[in-house]
Amino acid sequence: MSAGGTDPRATRGDDRELLGIAVAEARLGLAEGGIPIGAALVAANGSVLGRGHNRRVQDGDPSMHGETAAFKAAGRQSTYRGTTMVTSLSPCWFCSGLVRQFGISRVVIGEARTFHGGHDWLAEHGVEVVLLDDPECVGLMTDFIAAHPALWHEDIGAD
Amino acid sequence: MSAGGTDPRATRGDDRELLGIAVAEARLGLAEGGIPIGAALVAANGSVLGRGHNRRVQDGDPSMHGETAAFKAAGRQSTYRGTTMVTSLSPCWFCSGLVRQFGISRVVIGEARTFHGGHDWLAEHGVEVVLLDDPECVGLMTDFIAAHPALWHEDIGAD
Repeated sequence: MSAGGTDPRATRGDDRELLGIAVAEARLGLAEGGIPIGAALVAANGSVLGRGHNRRVQDGDPSMHGETAAFKAAGRQSTYRGTTMVTSLSPCWFCSGLVRQFGISRVVIGEARTFHGGHDWLAEHGVEVVLLDDPECVGLMTDFIAAHPALWHEDIGAD
Repeated sequence: MSAGGTDPRATRGDDRELLGIAVAEARLGLAEGGIPIGAALVAANGSVLGRGHNRRVQDGDPSMHGETAAFKAAGRQSTYRGTTMVTSLSPCWFCSGLVRQFGISRVVIGEARTFHGGHDWLAEHGVEVVLLDDPECVGLMTDFIAAHPALWHEDIGAD
């Protein structure tokens, strides 16, 4: 389903495939002892420009969320027009600000049940937002938050 | 002067000192061939938790703006309550989202003449915003943008 945009539409089949990349990144992070959130930045032609996952625990780096890791991995780009950021979890304000500032055209989101970030704001500002409400993504975060609530709160700046 | 908040007030003397750190970082970046924007994250007691500057050119890393570099350098923190982000230039949406998500309490800005980011939005959401309108900061960015317009546009995602 599509959320918040002006033109709700059916999910493209390849959005589910793109989400698979984000989920694979999330699972990599979990296997490393980290927070299981992953993302990828994908060009208009479907090629993956960059992919990554949250690295707070692994690198002691609070600036590397799934989306910022994917953005960094993509390196310098002259434009983000036509790109899609696919992420296993609704983007927080930091990552939503990234999408808005750089003009990323679309955001495909695994789930927004365990955390509702800034994706409505992005839709209001012309970003195409696709919310897949994926049960695997919900399960990953539900289990993680139950097991590590303090770490999760730290990652989103919740006192 | 204070901008956007509900309680305009005189600038604290130490905000000018804090800005000196951000400007020193901006000048370091310029000397390295980079974009001259610097920042620091400062604790409520005045201690500098982290400082840094834009590293797009130096590291080929589009995710390291002045503010994100300072945030990363501060490492993991359990809370950002009472902290100040001082930056030589108005924070873009990416860096404004960072401030909002992590609950950074204050933002001290060198100038917003050459680039107007999300600081009004931050003030609307309860962040104390102090805009110093510093001539040295204006000069740094005016000269840089004139000399390297394409690089500057790349840094803010302007096509």
